[in-house]
Amino acid sequence: MFTLRNVSVACRRSAVLTWRGISQRAVQRLDISGVYPPIATPFTHSEDVDYHRLNDNLNKYADIPFRGLVVQGSNGEYPYLTPEERVEVVKKVRQALPKDKLVMAGSGCESTKATIQMSQRMADVGADCVLVVTPCFYRGRMDSRALINHYAQVADSSSVPVVLYSVPANTGLDLPLDAIIQLSQHPNIVGLKDSGGDITRLALIVHKTRSQGFQVLAGSAGFLMAAYSVGAVGGVCALANVLGQQVCELAQLCVSGRWDEARELQYHLIEPNTAVTRQYGVPALKQAMEWFGYHGGVCRSPLQPLSQTDLDQLRVKFTSNGWL
Amino acid sequence: MFTLRNVSVACRRSAVLTWRGISQRAVQRLDISGVYPPIATPFTHSEDVDYHRLNDNLNKYADIPFRGLVVQGSNGEYPYLTPEERVEVVKKVRQALPKDKLVMAGSGCESTKATIQMSQRMADVGADCVLVVTPCFYRGRMDSRALINHYAQVADSSSVPVVLYSVPANTGLDLPLDAIIQLSQHPNIVGLKDSGGDITRLALIVHKTRSQGFQVLAGSAGFLMAAYSVGAVGGVCALANVLGQQVCELAQLCVSGRWDEARELQYHLIEPNTAVTRQYGVPALKQAMEWFGYHGGVCRSPLQPLSQTDLDQLRVKFTSNGWL
Amino acid sequence: MFTLRNVSVACRRSAVLTWRGISQRAVQRLDISGVYPPIATPFTHSEDVDYHRLNDNLNKYADIPFRGLVVQGSNGEYPYLTPEERVEVVKKVRQALPKDKLVMAGSGCESTKATIQMSQRMADVGADCVLVVTPCFYRGRMDSRALINHYAQVADSSSVPVVLYSVPANTGLDLPLDAIIQLSQHPNIVGLKDSGGDITRLALIVHKTRSQGFQVLAGSAGFLMAAYSVGAVGGVCALANVLGQQVCELAQLCVSGRWDEARELQYHLIEPNTAVTRQYGVPALKQAMEWFGYHGGVCRSPLQPLSQTDLDQLRVKFTSNGWL
Amino acid sequence: MFTLRNVSVACRRSAVLTWRGISQRAVQRLDISGVYPPIATPFTHSEDVDYHRLNDNLNKYADIPFRGLVVQGSNGEYPYLTPEERVEVVKKVRQALPKDKLVMAGSGCESTKATIQMSQRMADVGADCVLVVTPCFYRGRMDSRALINHYAQVADSSSVPVVLYSVPANTGLDLPLDAIIQLSQHPNIVGLKDSGGDITRLALIVHKTRSQGFQVLAGSAGFLMAAYSVGAVGGVCALANVLGQQVCELAQLCVSGRWDEARELQYHLIEPNTAVTRQYGVPALKQAMEWFGYHGGVCRSPLQPLSQTDLDQLRVKFTSNGWL
Repeated sequence: MFTLRNVSVACRRSAVLTWRGISQRAVQRLDISGVYPPIATPFTHSEDVDYHRLNDNLNKYADIPFRGLVVQGSNGEYPYLTPEERVEVVKKVRQALPKDKLVMAGSGCESTKATIQMSQRMADVGADCVLVVTPCFYRGRMDSRALINHYAQVADSSSVPVVLYSVPANTGLDLPLDAIIQLSQHPNIVGLKDSGGDITRLALIVHKTRSQGFQVLAGSAGFLMAAYSVGAVGGVCALANVLGQQVCELAQLCVSGRWDEARELQYHLIEPNTAVTRQYGVPALKQAMEWFGYHGGVCRSPLQPLSQTDLDQLRVKFTSNGWL
Repeated sequence: MFTLRNVSVACRRSAVLTWRGISQRAVQRLDISGVYPPIATPFTHSEDVDYHRLNDNLNKYADIPFRGLVVQGSNGEYPYLTPEERVEVVKKVRQALPKDKLVMAGSGCESTKATIQMSQRMADVGADCVLVVTPCFYRGRMDSRALINHYAQVADSSSVPVVLYSVPANTGLDLPLDAIIQLSQHPNIVGLKDSGGDITRLALIVHKTRSQGFQVLAGSAGFLMAAYSVGAVGGVCALANVLGQQVCELAQLCVSGRWDEARELQYHLIEPNTAVTRQYGVPALKQAMEWFGYHGGVCRSPLQPLSQTDLDQLRVKFTSNGWL
Repeated sequence: MFTLRNVSVACRRSAVLTWRGISQRAVQRLDISGVYPPIATPFTHSEDVDYHRLNDNLNKYADIPFRGLVVQGSNGEYPYLTPEERVEVVKKVRQALPKDKLVMAGSGCESTKATIQMSQRMADVGADCVLVVTPCFYRGRMDSRALINHYAQVADSSSVPVVLYSVPANTGLDLPLDAIIQLSQHPNIVGLKDSGGDITRLALIVHKTRSQGFQVLAGSAGFLMAAYSVGAVGGVCALANVLGQQVCELAQLCVSGRWDEARELQYHLIEPNTAVTRQYGVPALKQAMEWFGYHGGVCRSPLQPLSQTDLDQLRVKFTSNGWL
Repeated sequence: MFTLRNVSVACRRSAVLTWRGISQRAVQRLDISGVYPPIATPFTHSEDVDYHRLNDNLNKYADIPFRGLVVQGSNGEYPYLTPEERVEVVKKVRQALPKDKLVMAGSGCESTKATIQMSQRMADVGADCVLVVTPCFYRGRMDSRALINHYAQVADSSSVPVVLYSVPANTGLDLPLDAIIQLSQHPNIVGLKDSGGDITRLALIVHKTRSQGFQVLAGSAGFLMAAYSVGAVGGVCALANVLGQQVCELAQLCVSGRWDEARELQYHLIEPNTAVTRQYGVPALKQAMEWFGYHGGVCRSPLQPLSQTDLDQLRVKFTSNGWL
């Protein structure tokens, strides 16, 4: 039998956090555990935000045991919205959503200054926390020093908690482990959404940050079960826009330790999930939403509708796994 | 001796272009050949745009035989500027610049709609042409179909000519060859700035588009001579912010066929160029500008100043090549 | 509650396999489930294979509940051995090993012909099955068609079962999913060692092949628990050369459903595992073996010993996780 | 007008080289300038080396002004040959080739020891110099230290000059610049074949090594003209197996400063070159050889023949550029 030497088995440190030399009582961190759909933004045919259809979707989501909604994750086409639209959508979602559901609002911009301002505006219209994607245009210079500085400034100034967001498929940048570890000590940074899918890295992040009460969310339904197995506490899953009940069911099976059932369900979610994310992207997500009774509709240009071939392939991913 | 069969040796087609089935007289395209610095944006210590220092730089650039200036290429930190700042900087540059120098304004945004609007606003304040970077956040969906559609919409609506801009180091995306070829037939798309540095691709682009009068600009001083050797007509070179006279000299040597002298000069520009671009980025460019009598100064956060080690290394790249 | 429609829940098909139109009784496949160290090859100071030290290691491994040993995985420096040495090492290992332990011998070569011959020679000296790495030098041409053809030829001719081996960190090539699915139907291909670490892909492979009785082994201790959670049946883990007892313990905890204990142990194995694989490679593995009472020693050139700095870092990865 | 300060304009140092502290007279280096086809290895239908057809090809190549032949570059399928076959092919080529043509023999293996032995065997059967590809299986550990050590050992022991060979498309590894610079000082290392196609890097290599008399060869006809423009002295070009006369003509135009004619010819060689290398690989090269009167034939498995679609596309690349 093996023994761990020299290591006090990790236990949640509830006492004193040190951030930049200032010792302070650990604040009770916002509990963000659970499942979130990163909601899509419906548009009219003239490409304006369609608040009516958005509201319809929100009403349907109300019946699903989500922890909350992510507004303006990558699937919300936030890079295609004006700053005003970004704030307005968050505001409308908050108004429509029951109070016990969290609004996690994507406030990331390329500059620190713009991110601080956007975070504040979103908090002002009711966001419960902000999800801040790594700035990435100058990715060659976005090392740990730059990213720690960026996030610390944003967290220092934000009136609501901050969730880190690493999504290398879109940004070409993985938030480095050492930056995450250091930032996990910031009292206003409560967790991370990691969409990279490297399960070894994800486990190590949990290992290195759980003593801070730092919470890790899987960024995709494709590895949700594996993420739970190594200590994640939830997921932000594009597929939950389409199969929300099922993704919540998968999370619940994991939380309650019913791994065999979880595994069976996980298997049947992988292909649909890959199809609406990495493979065919937001246009596919919006198309699949239509099949399941939600409003998806067109994307803003330059995102194009799927070709008929892609559409057919997409549909097979749902039918062959028993969902259509 | 070899012979080319079945191929009419390429000649500039001056007569009739076909775009979307509409036959039309070829417009006389704007001549964009020559050297451009993609100018940096000086900031005050509170990170506001420093128009005074910008003006000083412009005055110094007036003595150098540039074809014009690129305002808000990647080195201008445009992703860190607000839309209003982007337009204002273009306006100020146009006012300060002699009429015979071109203002090529970077108007690219992620959405087609925003790019169209930004292009128009920049044209309205005097931009001679717009430089449109590939949208890239959803790079997995930015195939030729999406990009052709995007650029065609922008070019259709723009009152000034459009220059395509491919910069994979920042965007993670190479504008595909087939898209370039098709877009080269659009009467309002006059050329391409290619920063990728794949000289084989660049030569092939010239080969496939020169009959349209399409003009290719090298996106870096590192391969400027090689680009000229295969048919490029100029360059947008970060290094020209620092060693503008020398980059123009290199271009002139190439144009006049003095390749041996050009080669010697090219050799000594490679390391300084790499240092202010790929290696240490915009902070290094701005630092080097200070050494050569220009205002560089700080970058907006999250870009950080260079460490002392990097600074020392940067300086060596200039001293060891005889420039300091 | 969700339901799966149109899908007969996967059940192990025990009856009839079809391969190339030939219907046949499903052979009882070799059970390869469990943990394997991919053993290192000790060398003398003149870089000859040190069979004496190899034997010492084998004697120590005999006390650990491994399913067997992998001889000439990537950690065995097989690309540095002559064909004769490769066969001789397998022979010596088989002679030293108790009969109930499997010898899985790495027989992959670049050409199909050489792989067939090497597989046969290894079977002749007692290998229980062969592990066949993807050929990779012409990776641009190694599509599913080429790889299916390669593996089918090898499996057709081999007198012992074949295990597929995908290790993109070394080969730059991921064995494509569709190739794996098709090859899983071959009666002489019993499983896959996947070292890529993409847990979503790994789960999907299990989902798509388990009805064939196809067995998936994790290629690293870093994601061993997650792999078990999604249906893998074992692992080939470099770290098991060093912490063999602990890796077997982790596997046992997973198999018996004691996930909470497994998780704690998994956490403390990640950093040591990364250190002896991706981070510092075979020289680090051999160094760590020395710390834990095994013979590691030098690698063949061009692999170099670790620098002192790397050595110190390596040691920290073991001490900080309680293993030294 | 610019001036270079602090830099003595590079001049060929003809006097004393220092290598590992041993001062020695600079040997007269072997002149390797010119064009080489990296010849293909014809096989019989049973996949044996077809020496008869090889001889036919050599006879045809005799009429073309090549500087010599590369035997067992990547296009020679050397990873698919046994050590004995590798030596035998070199021997046969040397016997068939006029004395004034160089045989540059690819002797690279994964281990230093095997590379040393193979180099010696090839020298013994008449190779004039050896071309040594970077070992790559453990690419994560193949840093400058390892590679310098490897090449220095090989060069120390070799009775014929050594040419470095960097081919990242196959090896996933770029021989680092600092390693090249240091190795260029070794009296028995005469040059580099660089197949990467990064023209900026290539120019910098020439800049940093020409004082040693180090010679750089372009590894592809796609960027041959650009390579000459920045100081390369020749090329090893797959396309020269097919269009040998034309590639030599291009080289001659560059050497004699007739850049405008060179450019026109270069344009028409790019697509055929890409097609027989990166795009469709060795099977395409061998197919194209058949069209131009050479023996190409099948590749060894796992390389597969082209599909009909690929074949048609390949042919178009030659016809549309006037070569068929």
